[in-house]
Order: sequence, then C-alpha cells, then structure tokens
Amino acid sequence: MNFSIAARDQHARAGVLVLRHGAVKTPVFMPVGTYGAVKAMTPEELRASGTQMILSNTFHLMLRPGESLIQRSGGLHRFMHWDGPVLTDSGGFQVFSLASMRKIEEEGVHFNSPLDGSKIFLTPERAIAVQHALNSDVVMAFDECTPYPATRNDAEISMQRSMRWAQRCKSAHMGSTNALFGIIQGGIYADLRRQSIDILTDIGFDGYAIGGLAVGETAQERLYILDELTHHIPDSSPRYLMGVGFPQDIVEAVARGVDMFDCVIPTRHARNGHIFISSGLLRIRNAKYACDEKPLDPACACYTCSHYSRAYLRHLERCGEILWSRLATLHNLHYYQNLMQSAREAIIAGCFDDFRTEFYIKTKKIPPLREHAQ
Amino acid sequence: MNFSIAARDQHARAGVLVLRHGAVKTPVFMPVGTYGAVKAMTPEELRASGTQMILSNTFHLMLRPGESLIQRSGGLHRFMHWDGPVLTDSGGFQVFSLASMRKIEEEGVHFNSPLDGSKIFLTPERAIAVQHALNSDVVMAFDECTPYPATRNDAEISMQRSMRWAQRCKSAHMGSTNALFGIIQGGIYADLRRQSIDILTDIGFDGYAIGGLAVGETAQERLYILDELTHHIPDSSPRYLMGVGFPQDIVEAVARGVDMFDCVIPTRHARNGHIFISSGLLRIRNAKYACDEKPLDPACACYTCSHYSRAYLRHLERCGEILWSRLATLHNLHYYQNLMQSAREAIIAGCFDDFRTEFYIKTKKIPPLREHAQ
Repeated sequence: MNFSIAARDQHARAGVLVLRHGAVKTPVFMPVGTYGAVKAMTPEELRASGTQMILSNTFHLMLRPGESLIQRSGGLHRFMHWDGPVLTDSGGFQVFSLASMRKIEEEGVHFNSPLDGSKIFLTPERAIAVQHALNSDVVMAFDECTPYPATRNDAEISMQRSMRWAQRCKSAHMGSTNALFGIIQGGIYADLRRQSIDILTDIGFDGYAIGGLAVGETAQERLYILDELTHHIPDSSPRYLMGVGFPQDIVEAVARGVDMFDCVIPTRHARNGHIFISSGLLRIRNAKYACDEKPLDPACACYTCSHYSRAYLRHLERCGEILWSRLATLHNLHYYQNLMQSAREAIIAGCFDDFRTEFYIKTKKIPPLREHAQ
Repeated sequence: MNFSIAARDQHARAGVLVLRHGAVKTPVFMPVGTYGAVKAMTPEELRASGTQMILSNTFHLMLRPGESLIQRSGGLHRFMHWDGPVLTDSGGFQVFSLASMRKIEEEGVHFNSPLDGSKIFLTPERAIAVQHALNSDVVMAFDECTPYPATRNDAEISMQRSMRWAQRCKSAHMGSTNALFGIIQGGIYADLRRQSIDILTDIGFDGYAIGGLAVGETAQERLYILDELTHHIPDSSPRYLMGVGFPQDIVEAVARGVDMFDCVIPTRHARNGHIFISSGLLRIRNAKYACDEKPLDPACACYTCSHYSRAYLRHLERCGEILWSRLATLHNLHYYQNLMQSAREAIIAGCFDDFRTEFYIKTKKIPPLREHAQ
C-alpha cells in the first residue's frame, strides 16, 4: 500500500491511495456491499457512478455464504465480479449491533448467529483470517464498538481492550501483502481518543480509522471529536471515518482532514424514496411530483436523470417496482461520487472553502458553528 | 401496420411486422411490462436481450398512474423510455382475474378497483380510449375471457358477447393509425372458435389473437384448439397466442403457425429462482449449486452467464438481493429471445422440424403426440 498527498487546502487533503487492486483518488466514498453486492447495482454501474472502491461486511459474509466458499471461488473480487479495491470491516460493529446473546471476554466475543442461532466465537485472529480468505485490499482490525452514551470509565476499559485486540490483529496480519488499518476508539472523550491514537501508532498500521462514531452521538459531538483528534493521526497515513454519513457530514469531515468514507445512506435512502439532489433532499412519494416531467435533479447527468421523469419514477416507487430501486440507487451514488470528485477538485484548486460555502447555499442547510470549522 | 411472411416451413412462418414504432421479426416474444416497466429491467437491457416489442397492461395503467397522466407525458413510450413497439392488452383478462364485485352487462363490466375499492365501469369504448391515450402500437379489442371449464352453452354466450364488443371496439378505433387486433374466443369448443373467427374476419382486424387459453386447460386441449383453428385465421394476418407460455408451448405454437407471444413466465420465474437453460430448468435454490463455479448456462452468452457463477447467484438469491432478480431476469429473457431467433432461423432454413427435435432432446422433454404436431 502507498498513500501520497497530492494537494492540501487548510486541513483538507487530496491524495492517491494505491492498493493491490488499483489506485484510488481521495477523498473517497465507498458504497456498501454487505453481502458481496452493492444493493441493486452491477459492478459496471458502480464504475459508471464514479465508484473506485467498495466496502463489504466480514460479519455477514462469514455467516453467509461463508468465507471458505468465497476463498475457493478465488476471493471476493472474483466471486462478485468487482476488480477494484475492496475494504472489509472486521465484524466488530455488527457483533455489537446485530448479534444476540453476546458475551465479551478478553479472548474474543461469543454470540449467536442472527441467521440460525448457532454459536459463534469471533476473535481478532479469526476476524483477520476471514478477511484474508476474502482477500480484501484493506483489512480492518477487530475492535469493540463502544456504545453511546458510555461513561468515561466504560469508554476507557472498552478502548483499552480494543487496543490489545489491535496488537493481536497486527500479529495475525504479519506476512500479508494487503493493508491493515487500526481503529481509534475512546467514545466522545478526546483524551481517550488521543491515547488510542498513541497506542495504535506505536503498533503501526497502514491507515487509521475513526470508529465508534455515527452510533447516536450528536453532529456537534462528532465534529468536536474530529476537531480534537484528526491532526493527531500521522499526517502521512490515510484517515477513514467509518459509517459516516450524510453529504454535509462528509463535507465537514473532509474539511477536517478525513480521506475515506463509507455509508449505507445513499443506497438505503434511494430504496426508501429519498433522493439527494443539488438543492437538498427530494422525497419522491410527495404528491407534488405525480405529474412532474422534470428529471430528479436537472443539474445531474446520470442515466436516471438523462432518461426518466419524476412522474415516471414516482409511479415506479408507488408500484414497488425493482426498477425504482435501481434507478434511485444509481442516482444517489452518482450524487455522492460527484460530491467527492468536486471536493477533490476544490482542494486541488485551493478553494475548498468556496466549495463548502456553495454546498450550504445550494442545499439551504446551516453550516456547523465556526469553532468546529477551525 | 404491415405484415409480410418472409419464409414458411410447413405451418410455421417467419414474418416481418411493421408497426408505428418499428419493424418486428416474427415469431416474436413480448416480455410483460405490467406497470410500464418490465420487472427489474431497463429498456437498454431489454434491447440487449433481443427484445423487439413489449406488452403492457391497460387495466393496471388505467388504475395507476392513470392513462391521462401517461398521455400528458407524451404516451407510454416516452413515459417509460422505450422507443420500440408496444402492444397493450385490453384489460379484459384482468377484469376477469383480478377485479372483485364484478358485474357483466351488455354495455360493459362494473367492478371494484383492487387498489382502493373504487367503482369502475369498463366498456369496449373505454378500453380502446385508454389504449389510444397510451398510444400503443397494437391495440387489443376488449373481450370477456371465458373461464375454464365452461359448458358449451356458457362458452357460446360469452363468445357472442365478445364478438359484439369486438364490433364496438372496431367502431371506437376508427380513424386511429395504430393497429387493432381482434380476440378469438369460444373456450375449448372448436366449432365456437371457428364461428368466432368468421365473425371477427367479417368485421376485419389487423391481426387475430387467440384468447381464453392458458387459463387452466391442459396442454393437450390447448394444442387441439390450435390445431383446429390456426389455419382458419387469415393467412396474411399476424396470429397472436395470448399469455403463453413455457418454451415448449411456444415451440409447439410456432409449429402450428402462431407469430406472436407474451408471457410473464421468464420474468416471474427468474425472480422465483427458476432459470431456463439449454438443458431444461435450473432451480438455483438447490443446494447442489452452492459451490458451483459454472455459469447458469455454459452455452449462454448473456451478461449474467459471462460474469457470474451459480455459487454467487445462489448466494444473492438466498440473501434476497435485488441483483439476483436483475441477473436472473436478464438471463431468462435472453434465453427466450434466443429461442425465438433460433426458431425463426430454422424456419427460414427450412429445418424447423430438426430445431424442434433438438429442443426436445436437449431439454429431455417429451414432445406432444404426433396427431397434434400435424
């Protein structure tokens, strides 16, 4: 793995991340392909939307169809017909959000499969082994996702365990040519977050992820943590904010020096009838679109906006047609990828502040308080 | 409309049907786009599968989004972004299969909308007006779909009413440049079917459809009716067998001189995990495909078979992924269109019998009794 920064604009960075399956321009947004497919999309459509890299879920694939089947099929890339880079989460987040009968001990986590109730024991070593079987370009360390809210004491105990697990992940990853990222924990406590960074950088990772956010904290708390910790992460390493978020969350995080993002929002919102357009959010179920012959976003050049009216798309959504999910997902991903590309161009041109201001004017949203914008 | 027969092989015909939105080579299979979208498919994908013409449903579109909305959008073609020919059924079949509180009188049919229970009165004139608003290339006469089984007396009364309605449809269609097809009824009674043909040809239509089949009768009864009536239909007109069917049903009907087909089977079966391949039917849920790295059909050149293994596709189906419905539909339509194209080529080459024999050998199916093959 290689990461180089091509341009900077205040804290924001435009970089190039070279991985085993290709180079990725940052800031980058990774659509989520939970089960080895970004919902409703083909790999060719992902490419056409500007997608360079995707995220897939270790937890889900481990349970179904099982990592050994994917390994026998030649790895996740070949299995799902996606030849670009793949990042896999470690399963940590899902163990803490989806599994029942969860029991944490120092060695790992016992839980029951949400699919068939069978008993599973996931350890840092197993999480790394699964990701090796999938052959992901970026392997994530197995961590405990500290819940929100958590007392300082609970957050510290949880963070410390994640750091011990990070060390074990590093050992388990030895010899692999894929990249390994550590995950910073510590809840909303800035000093714990800094402590976590110090431990992870001592161990040494290819990149650093900010975990345990987007779990219920306010946008202000999230920005506070980003303000406090981003510049403590080694400047030369890629920084990845996990599971975030809405377009404005991404714009603010890019402003604070984050390079990588993933989120289900563009794809899930599409299926639920929520469309991101230049001027904000369009809810296709609204009756006012029933006879509207305009495209979803007149400023958009995607396939959906080139060929279909709001009236037709609303009709498809109301009829529960699969084509709705497809056309809406295609558009939302195009919106997100276009946002990332514009952000990158603005950083390179040295006008990220103007880009950010224009984003808020167009979407009629209120930017966060100035002290958080640094 | 113009229909010319380019080649014949015994009763089978290879023709060209010229409609307002383009020319169609027959025998032709029309995928069904009930709500103005062939489920899970874009128009570009339909084209790529070899689809030349689609069927859409008057009954469904009349109720949702309503024909006036589609008319204001520039007609069904523009609304759904499909520039090829469209045939619309008249709503007759759906009134008799989907509507509740149905009451038939000479003037038309009263029923309650299955969407919101509102009272609707559908007459031959209204069915034609709706189809004109949709601007379909081939307008179908409004008929009563005689149920199966029916006594000879019931079938005769029902057929006679359909014939009076056909006359009213013809009058209502005067002045339109779109084609109008009459629908032959008469249940499984050959003499009633012939009587129906005589009445329809006296009125004069651009094409003749065989209605009231695929409603529960046996394959033998269906073939008997086809054997008895096909050659009574004017030789120079296109013949359309409504709602049929499985690949072997289509092969047998082509052998008997039928030119046009529509059916939900390829698309619906795809979504339900049933895949048509050269050697027969593949049920993807079968555990034996769990680790199978072969494509669905090694003999197929479609996008799905070019890029995905049975193991991956089975995984998608088990996970309920939309991508499964897409990839499976794409393949099944490709199979059907390939079958139609091969049938046409065989007719032109004068070897339809060989084609038919090979079809039965490959699929290991038993051909119908010789007296029905004529």
